[in-house]
Amino acid sequence: MKLPKHVTIKEVGPRDGLQNEIEMIQTKDKIEWIENLSKTGLSYIEVTSFVHPKWIPQLADAVDVLKGLKREESVTYAALVPNMRGLERALEANIDEVSVFMSASESHNKNNINKSIEETYPVLEEVVQAAKKEGKQVRGYLSTVIGCPYEGKIPVEQVVRITDRLLEMGIEEISLGDTIGVGVPTEVEALLSALLTRFNSNLFAMHFHDTRGTALANILQSLEMGLTKFDSSLGGLGGCPYAKGASGNVATEDLLYMLQGMGINTNIDMDALLNAAFFIEEKLGKQLNSKQMNIARK
Amino acid sequence: MKLPKHVTIKEVGPRDGLQNEIEMIQTKDKIEWIENLSKTGLSYIEVTSFVHPKWIPQLADAVDVLKGLKREESVTYAALVPNMRGLERALEANIDEVSVFMSASESHNKNNINKSIEETYPVLEEVVQAAKKEGKQVRGYLSTVIGCPYEGKIPVEQVVRITDRLLEMGIEEISLGDTIGVGVPTEVEALLSALLTRFNSNLFAMHFHDTRGTALANILQSLEMGLTKFDSSLGGLGGCPYAKGASGNVATEDLLYMLQGMGINTNIDMDALLNAAFFIEEKLGKQLNSKQMNIARK
Repeated sequence: MKLPKHVTIKEVGPRDGLQNEIEMIQTKDKIEWIENLSKTGLSYIEVTSFVHPKWIPQLADAVDVLKGLKREESVTYAALVPNMRGLERALEANIDEVSVFMSASESHNKNNINKSIEETYPVLEEVVQAAKKEGKQVRGYLSTVIGCPYEGKIPVEQVVRITDRLLEMGIEEISLGDTIGVGVPTEVEALLSALLTRFNSNLFAMHFHDTRGTALANILQSLEMGLTKFDSSLGGLGGCPYAKGASGNVATEDLLYMLQGMGINTNIDMDALLNAAFFIEEKLGKQLNSKQMNIARK
Repeated sequence: MKLPKHVTIKEVGPRDGLQNEIEMIQTKDKIEWIENLSKTGLSYIEVTSFVHPKWIPQLADAVDVLKGLKREESVTYAALVPNMRGLERALEANIDEVSVFMSASESHNKNNINKSIEETYPVLEEVVQAAKKEGKQVRGYLSTVIGCPYEGKIPVEQVVRITDRLLEMGIEEISLGDTIGVGVPTEVEALLSALLTRFNSNLFAMHFHDTRGTALANILQSLEMGLTKFDSSLGGLGGCPYAKGASGNVATEDLLYMLQGMGINTNIDMDALLNAAFFIEEKLGKQLNSKQMNIARK
């Protein structure tokens, strides 16, 4: 099996994880947690979102988190920004890198952003141009690239077409999201085959939710196709227990276990990672269910 | 990706699952459950074990379960037998197929069977000969083929050597067990590469526990190497919550989800399978945590 020597794990727990948890975490606890994460060897942490607090009250303290944080040189701190207002707040808080987002599914995009896919491009483009003018890298999240809760399967050609537009506007990396965690390895293969005939693999990160247990198998498939960047959330955070079909990202520590076992370097320390997982578990006041946490607590 | 068109799932929940659960299930409930399982499209169910009840009191009713069962023509009903006394009881109960077992790790074998690996062969051989004389197929479980709780990594050559001996004594199929669920896809690749240069792939089934979340990734790797038989337990049964490092088999319904998504035929009906999972969950009185069950209950 042909595998990369090094993989970059992008920790999205403080954003994608916490925005889907019911419990509100105090700002000081978030800061302490992100500081813990910064000492695990992770090189990239998405710390918050500048979406309007009306939509995601859990992350209403975005500016305070970023301003309060003692940053590590080795870590890129990123945040999600939906529009120019969000970008302004993110820049005020001296963000390192920003992420824009849209969906590969017309109805999911409409439902999330209240715009058609066509209408979304100019909004993103404005943010991308402004961010780049400030010297910031821009990442693009493309969600529901395999399946959509409203439309079912998403055609590969649609993902290719949107990817093309996003890269054209200057986005440096696209995180391909199996947002509802329905994908299986053959679908990952079909998607990546189509994308990699047109685009370089280092333009992509894979973002799997583990709703149906297939995340690590999908990551294995992606690794074999040359992908080297993966999003994950500590403790598999974000598995909202009340929403049908919602589930957390693949757990960072479970991904790390598989990568370490396969001899792939990540620079991340498992013990430090697990300590950070137990810290946020305590603050959330509910048991997280990553496999490595369950082994560690026995 | 090269994949088989058809896969056989061998349900081991009533044996490998229940023997690792604290709760004792009533005989009539076991029978009802196995009858439910028999109508899901499964073609193979390991229903119990004839290990001495002193060791596994949960399965002390082996004879009654087998005798009480209304069998389906399309299903092979199997049971674990440790020795001649076990075989006699299994034959009395008109078993279809028997399984013998040993470990690829010297100390795990010693710990489980109280014999060295060398001392185990003649015991198994006697059972295998007697079973075949009665016209029964014999399956061999080889456990800890990747890692052992006492010895760590198990050398591939050791697994090849023991496999050779087991096949020589007339065992028709070997179930290769990652008993403590430590394996990663590269280890599966190394093991199967070594075995498949000497032996035909249809001599093997893979038996993964999902302790560290890698079971489906390991199954993907096995599928790509031509394996077509996989053991699993409904609901991921057997995840004893009190023993460090112990965890259930990969959940049958999670395996089925991945196989179905990849277009691999199994003949198994997901809804019927989930109904059987919720039945045994209720009897156990504790929540099972397969991904498909968690989605279905939302």
